[in-house]
Amino acid sequence: MDRLSKQMNFILELDRLKDIKRQTYKLNGIEQENDAEHSWHLAVMALLLSEYSNEKVDILRVMSMVLIHDVIEIDAGDTYAYDEAGNQTKRERELKAAKRLFGMLPEDQEKQMWGLWDEFEDFKTPESKFANVLDRVQPGMLNDATGGKAWLEHDVAKHQIVNRNAKIHEGSEILSEYMMNMIDKNVKLGKIKDE
Amino acid sequence: MDRLSKQMNFILELDRLKDIKRQTYKLNGIEQENDAEHSWHLAVMALLLSEYSNEKVDILRVMSMVLIHDVIEIDAGDTYAYDEAGNQTKRERELKAAKRLFGMLPEDQEKQMWGLWDEFEDFKTPESKFANVLDRVQPGMLNDATGGKAWLEHDVAKHQIVNRNAKIHEGSEILSEYMMNMIDKNVKLGKIKDE
Repeated sequence: MDRLSKQMNFILELDRLKDIKRQTYKLNGIEQENDAEHSWHLAVMALLLSEYSNEKVDILRVMSMVLIHDVIEIDAGDTYAYDEAGNQTKRERELKAAKRLFGMLPEDQEKQMWGLWDEFEDFKTPESKFANVLDRVQPGMLNDATGGKAWLEHDVAKHQIVNRNAKIHEGSEILSEYMMNMIDKNVKLGKIKDE
Repeated sequence: MDRLSKQMNFILELDRLKDIKRQTYKLNGIEQENDAEHSWHLAVMALLLSEYSNEKVDILRVMSMVLIHDVIEIDAGDTYAYDEAGNQTKRERELKAAKRLFGMLPEDQEKQMWGLWDEFEDFKTPESKFANVLDRVQPGMLNDATGGKAWLEHDVAKHQIVNRNAKIHEGSEILSEYMMNMIDKNVKLGKIKDE
């Protein structure tokens, strides 16, 4: 198969990310968003909020990471942040998915996709840390705007959210503070359990 | 209102792009995609296909353009490519939408958004031309993969598609040829009217 056909087959397969539902509700409060919508939202945030990264970041790199960070969920499915059992098998399922999906591409782009995904997961570079901040803040913002619907449905407790966001200040002090204020507000409102 | 609040309000408002349905069916053949999903798909294509641009392009600029090119449809709605009446009032509706939406941002970012949107619409720079190629090829690819469902529903004729894609060779000779072959194939298959 020639190079362009491989690329186009991969791009077509990516369409399935639009069918992977997340737990977060959209602003309309009725439907849950999917991974493609979520990834688009993060990429626009990368464009508009990079000034809040603690360290100067390569915006193209941040954008590229957030655009593809959930692609492996086409095979592995979305694992809810507070699903303990699901998170025990998550890494294995996702590695298998990455092998199949990225393996559809020509070798140089297969490596490029692995590089972006590994970097995102490793939380080491300034770009990865900032991309991970966005990935935490976006669902928080939507949960807050929809009256805490997803938090209430999953009976989420403050300590779970605080643990999950414990490191985002390494990417952005300002957005971390924004997130923590939002959590406190929703604890007071009874949308997040105070324990 | 402070800078961060303005930015966050705009980012939250953007969520409504996930509710703007397009005519193109997703690969699942059942649901139509929305503008946020479409924009995400284009941004990943910008990452993977820039080698086919006739001229070297700034990928960040292409990505930024495709990420926000449909944001104005939050207010203006999606106008189907072959809806003649809708296309007569399109520009006016979109300008009004851009004023309201981009006006939610701090002034520097309001200008940045206008710059990206105007550049995309003007089809003059290499980045704009390449972004517009992606915006044509992606629905074509999905229509082809779903048995021409959207083309058949709208009784689309070959001359309409060819006219709409007449200039994309200016952005990419290779992707234009790919698109034209796809159109010819679907004319032969009876998915696009031959007139």
